[in-house]
Amino acid sequence: VTKYYTPHTHTFMNFFVVSPQGCRYVSKAAAKTQVEFDYDGPSMTTTVPGPRSQELMKQLGQIQNTGAINFFCNYEESKGNYLVDVDGNRMLDIYTQISSIPIGYNHPALLKVMTNPNNLSTFVNRPALGILPPENFPDKITESLLSVAPSGMTRVQTMSCGACSNENAYKAIFIWYRNKERGPNTPTNEELNTSMINQAPGCPELSILSFMGGFHGRTLGCLATTHSKAIHKLDIPSFDWPVAPFPRLQYPLDEFTRDNAEEEARCLEEVEDLIVKWRQKGKPVAGIVIEPIQAEGGDNHASPDFFRRLRNIARKHGCAFHVDEVQTGGGGTGKFWAHEHWGMDDPADVVSFSKKLLSGGYYHKDELQADKYPSILSRARGQGTFCAIDACDDATRDRIMLKARDKGVLLGGCGDRTIRFRPALVFKEYHVNLFLNIFNDVLAQHK
Amino acid sequence: VTKYYTPHTHTFMNFFVVSPQGCRYVSKAAAKTQVEFDYDGPSMTTTVPGPRSQELMKQLGQIQNTGAINFFCNYEESKGNYLVDVDGNRMLDIYTQISSIPIGYNHPALLKVMTNPNNLSTFVNRPALGILPPENFPDKITESLLSVAPSGMTRVQTMSCGACSNENAYKAIFIWYRNKERGPNTPTNEELNTSMINQAPGCPELSILSFMGGFHGRTLGCLATTHSKAIHKLDIPSFDWPVAPFPRLQYPLDEFTRDNAEEEARCLEEVEDLIVKWRQKGKPVAGIVIEPIQAEGGDNHASPDFFRRLRNIARKHGCAFHVDEVQTGGGGTGKFWAHEHWGMDDPADVVSFSKKLLSGGYYHKDELQADKYPSILSRARGQGTFCAIDACDDATRDRIMLKARDKGVLLGGCGDRTIRFRPALVFKEYHVNLFLNIFNDVLAQHK
Repeated sequence: VTKYYTPHTHTFMNFFVVSPQGCRYVSKAAAKTQVEFDYDGPSMTTTVPGPRSQELMKQLGQIQNTGAINFFCNYEESKGNYLVDVDGNRMLDIYTQISSIPIGYNHPALLKVMTNPNNLSTFVNRPALGILPPENFPDKITESLLSVAPSGMTRVQTMSCGACSNENAYKAIFIWYRNKERGPNTPTNEELNTSMINQAPGCPELSILSFMGGFHGRTLGCLATTHSKAIHKLDIPSFDWPVAPFPRLQYPLDEFTRDNAEEEARCLEEVEDLIVKWRQKGKPVAGIVIEPIQAEGGDNHASPDFFRRLRNIARKHGCAFHVDEVQTGGGGTGKFWAHEHWGMDDPADVVSFSKKLLSGGYYHKDELQADKYPSILSRARGQGTFCAIDACDDATRDRIMLKARDKGVLLGGCGDRTIRFRPALVFKEYHVNLFLNIFNDVLAQHK
Repeated sequence: VTKYYTPHTHTFMNFFVVSPQGCRYVSKAAAKTQVEFDYDGPSMTTTVPGPRSQELMKQLGQIQNTGAINFFCNYEESKGNYLVDVDGNRMLDIYTQISSIPIGYNHPALLKVMTNPNNLSTFVNRPALGILPPENFPDKITESLLSVAPSGMTRVQTMSCGACSNENAYKAIFIWYRNKERGPNTPTNEELNTSMINQAPGCPELSILSFMGGFHGRTLGCLATTHSKAIHKLDIPSFDWPVAPFPRLQYPLDEFTRDNAEEEARCLEEVEDLIVKWRQKGKPVAGIVIEPIQAEGGDNHASPDFFRRLRNIARKHGCAFHVDEVQTGGGGTGKFWAHEHWGMDDPADVVSFSKKLLSGGYYHKDELQADKYPSILSRARGQGTFCAIDACDDATRDRIMLKARDKGVLLGGCGDRTIRFRPALVFKEYHVNLFLNIFNDVLAQHK
């Protein structure tokens, strides 16, 4: 146990007891409930896998590869910290479905969610959330995922699993990076046409820098950033993306202070070298992805200082910094998000999650929002209330300003295609929202 | 409506009324239930999106990109063929959440599944099915997915969504292809080491051939085979994989018989050319993926003859033939699987599904099973009862045969590392299972 790893079981509670105010303090009542909802201790009646598990393994073997199965479970009888198998063995579970059971088996609070008649129609009708969400979707996301959003993150995209969360986060990073490069220009016909046949410039040779020992999932994009075990990667085509060393710390930490600092410096130097090298290769690094603690790769830790310096390197080179909290998020490290241990105001551009959050997705900063109107607007910039944005051409700029005036908003122009915002110093958040709603309507009509 | 597209609404029923015997006939009782469980007709009270939808769009816009949202839904009030929105509009739904609602909204049979107390603990505890499945998992899969397995498919791998299903099917194809090339040899250290840094030979330059207009998902592997709209692909790095033309048929079909036949022949010729070209490039085609009807790409059809000839081309060139039934599977085309319209005994090596099956995954042939013991066994071959398999060396072969005899099974050897199977002509399925169970135990112990 190192100073970076401070398990604090009460924090497991946080996700499900967060109040509407996003309060992160532990509910003593909920903690008590969980303690009561538990068995007394393990109880082993057979070796594991027992005869019933072995029988079922043979049955399932006719249908699927069963090479990874440990044993078959009786989830009805499992409770709290105890997993019960089909042979009646009851085990204290310190692995929890690869870190995916936040508050124990069959917790009453979760059973209540699953059996709440108000949730039933959403579960059973499988809504295509991106086009036809249910009425309570904005409120539900606000009350749950946004109430525990990482520092600096105001937006969240939900997904079904950890791998999809990372795949889509990478895509958001690539799109953000290309939009930066493209500036005010719209995609060319050459880009659009080449994208259809997987070729540059439409499908650019961008890369994600990852770390040896990292695990970010097994779909092909994620797998190109996963480097924990050869068996996950062997025989699968991949991308030529840079792989940096992850610090290999010596323990106990206080006896190896200087060695470990040197090791971390060496790794960071290699990160910068790789970024430069891949840029020269014509495959620029659009983003850096890292786990706060490498889990699948062997529970490898690094110091908060390492992560702070890495985050600065990302910023310096214009790479998005993506913190993969799929395994570490949800309280297991003593903070809701493991990256909170780094003590930074602006720790990441993207934070992905799944597992303990019993869902999946990624938080991201505003600028990583896939831009709604990239072909109309670009180069958003400003200081305080002194802000501006460019339209794609002068005619569009003028039309937008006129339409906005028709709806009751006065804007100014500058340069050949810029809209300038110069509100009074009594312009409050309420006015910002009022403006954005109207501006959004104008842009939607323009489209 | 063409001769290849024969909607037959009753077939929507099949998935949920399959009896334990896998009977595919329509349950008249269930059909009646659904007809009763429906509204009388549409009822429109506002334009769409109505005021409440617009309000919610603005609220969600603070959190997520809402550019694709049509309107917000009231899933509680939706029923049968009718989707109700938050402004009280009731619409006859002929799009069904992008083809994902098999038997209408809030069907009593599905509500029963969701509220069945016996399913609750599986839903709430999110089991890691690959390592700790519940007791009823083999039976449930057998009763449901295997009872509607496509012709020639005895194995099924479950997944959470269509994209993950295709991603993992591609991986199974790549592994199968490399195992064929590798023959009796185990992976070299060079392969294992280079795989960790995304380089060949460990991550080989294999490809999947797909079709212009195809849609197979949006994760990076799937996206490399998706070619329906540039906006899905723009700015995302991709693989240099071949893209063949999909036939562009002229309608009505009976007036363009010769033109259409020529068009299909042209596309098939291009497929073969691409396979040869990519082999010469050093990026051999491991698999061909195709939808029976291109959906996202514009509802493009081809004749059964086209698919039969394509399947033969795949076989001739040693490519796996992957039929993507994510959108077509589940009854919507008048057969449970659209590829059944081709009238073949052996239509595919892999069939992926999701959407209407309210689940995801892929069926596959035995030989695409990620081999449990690739380092021990290889070159499985045979004709009728005259079968053989190779061990990795003579010592292993001899040890396996001795262990099998200790457990009561007599085998013979031949060549320097081969095990031969020469059962009597009264050897029944029961004996095969008996043998496989024991053989499996022997191999597991050897490992």
